Amino acid sequence: MLYEINEKIIRLERKGRKIIKFNLGDPDQQTPMEIIEAAFEAMKKGKTKYSSAAGEEELREALAETHGVDADNIVITPGSKWAVFAVMYLLLDKGDNIIIPSPHWTAYDLIAKRLGVDVKLIKTRLESNWEVNIQDLKALITDKTKLIILNNPNNPTSKVMDERVVEEIVNFANERGIKILSDEVYADISFVKMKSLLDYEGDHIVVKSFSKTFAMTGWRVGYVIADKAFTDKIIKLNQITLTNVPVFIQKAALKALELQQQIVKSMRELYKKRANLAYKILSGTKLKFTRPEAPFYVFPKSEGLNSEKLSFNLLDKGVAVVPGTSFGDYIEHFRISLTVPDDEVELGLKIIAEAFK
Amino acid sequence: MLYEINEKIIRLERKGRKIIKFNLGDPDQQTPMEIIEAAFEAMKKGKTKYSSAAGEEELREALAETHGVDADNIVITPGSKWAVFAVMYLLLDKGDNIIIPSPHWTAYDLIAKRLGVDVKLIKTRLESNWEVNIQDLKALITDKTKLIILNNPNNPTSKVMDERVVEEIVNFANERGIKILSDEVYADISFVKMKSLLDYEGDHIVVKSFSKTFAMTGWRVGYVIADKAFTDKIIKLNQITLTNVPVFIQKAALKALELQQQIVKSMRELYKKRANLAYKILSGTKLKFTRPEAPFYVFPKSEGLNSEKLSFNLLDKGVAVVPGTSFGDYIEHFRISLTVPDDEVELGLKIIAEAFK
Repeated sequence: MLYEINEKIIRLERKGRKIIKFNLGDPDQQTPMEIIEAAFEAMKKGKTKYSSAAGEEELREALAETHGVDADNIVITPGSKWAVFAVMYLLLDKGDNIIIPSPHWTAYDLIAKRLGVDVKLIKTRLESNWEVNIQDLKALITDKTKLIILNNPNNPTSKVMDERVVEEIVNFANERGIKILSDEVYADISFVKMKSLLDYEGDHIVVKSFSKTFAMTGWRVGYVIADKAFTDKIIKLNQITLTNVPVFIQKAALKALELQQQIVKSMRELYKKRANLAYKILSGTKLKFTRPEAPFYVFPKSEGLNSEKLSFNLLDKGVAVVPGTSFGDYIEHFRISLTVPDDEVELGLKIIAEAFK
Repeated sequence: MLYEINEKIIRLERKGRKIIKFNLGDPDQQTPMEIIEAAFEAMKKGKTKYSSAAGEEELREALAETHGVDADNIVITPGSKWAVFAVMYLLLDKGDNIIIPSPHWTAYDLIAKRLGVDVKLIKTRLESNWEVNIQDLKALITDKTKLIILNNPNNPTSKVMDERVVEEIVNFANERGIKILSDEVYADISFVKMKSLLDYEGDHIVVKSFSKTFAMTGWRVGYVIADKAFTDKIIKLNQITLTNVPVFIQKAALKALELQQQIVKSMRELYKKRANLAYKILSGTKLKFTRPEAPFYVFPKSEGLNSEKLSFNLLDKGVAVVPGTSFGDYIEHFRISLTVPDDEVELGLKIIAEAFK
């Protein structure tokens, strides 16, 4: 479906049509110039050689300090997707299963499929504020369940999980000896205060990224936080696959961390403003949705909607969105990604609002 | 063993000892400034976003033209090691086996071990000019043999394979329906004219890299050349693991290709000069070795030598080398990597020569 939508976008753009691309989770923001300069300086200083598969010591230490762990608990990866793949590849055998609250990021599915692993989805609903029901989770567990993946804040709902629910899940996982992978790539720019899985009991795994927080998607730099036994396994996997994340990219990431406070503040304000605008414009329509608690997404619903058809129809009006079926069993939903310039955000939202008057 | 040697290097360097590092396959050369500038320009132009898992179209097309294939036959990877991993991961199942002429790069072993794949080594010998005996290869084949890996030119011998032998191997593999992976990362700066596996019959796989040719080791950019059905599989694997190689790195790689003629010429001359110097200095000793036909290595032998002990002893004299046991059953050999500045090359070789007078 996404393939056909993308093909149509390309066709329309070739004809000279301007498309407002609410379909991509890639910030319109440029990577801050200080970060680019830091990479350039590092290249000029010869930081272009083989290096550690664990990541640069100073970056690991800076991240360890941020998260209150040891540098040994951090491994730098080429993006959080690699981190998720590595965790799943190392933890799961063919025939195992994993549990994921849905709606969910499609990469988890695709990786599981590649590994021959079954995915069991906990369906969550807009009407229950996207809350994960712990009974639903318990009902899905089998002796082949090796991993629970939480994506907090969630793509596509932009919902931050209720701390009480996370605690229930963690307690249950600890009892049953099941690992949790918490994908927290949107956490640093969340609009609401939230806890990391690191703040709960148990030896679980957190995955983070520089992509969203610093508008560094294409740099491919993220990291895993886990116990040393597990980070050692990832390091060994990095050694036989990637060798290392380019050191000049890690120097750029280190600069990003130095500037974190100011960058996060401006990113959060920008996306909060857009989320507010979406709330305002879409509130007067037939669409139901929860107010975003984090960037970048809104995941509205319209009773009886076929969002796949909608996606094609909206394209004809110059707006690209992603049908809810790309995130699980959500045909009545679609995802709007507020990652286009402000004027396009407003125009695009108005076109959508018009369609759901 | 390598771990203990590296620990000793670190200990000695901390004490202020200067070590001539003949142990690393990482050029002392800096990445040419034009290539660095190209990356910087690309970053400033916003080439910092998500992009194609196949690689940038213009880079794929440029490489396709170089190799006389279609852009569809090229996938850009984060280094040739990822390329080798991806090929092995996609082709091999647990319990399969692969055949590799030895001495050989240790990464093949480590990847195979990770995948639960058996490695069958064809022992080659200095005394037979490192030639692969096709009968030895045939004797190793089982119905579980799925891949033959050739590393041409070879690390650690710097030997280019005899074309007649490659042809025999290719014909045999074609008959038996076994794929060949040809790792040709040293080919572009080979001192002698040589054929790529692409120049033979059959649907095989070639892996290349920008690392050695352009002193870009830490940039992590290489590529696979294969039939479209297979490159499509790698693209799918890239999609669920890496997303893409950073576009600004691919722009740097494209600039490298533009400058290929002049860079290759100067790299080749530099390493040829060092190889000649090694030949001259080591010729007057007890060491036997074949004259390097490519950068960067010499893999000399001394009858009765324990190269692991030698490696520690040489370290005390300020020179680091790699024992032959790191490349297979070669205790009497050690590897010298001519990737240190010219004055160190001469001094280090003289220290080694002194030890084998």
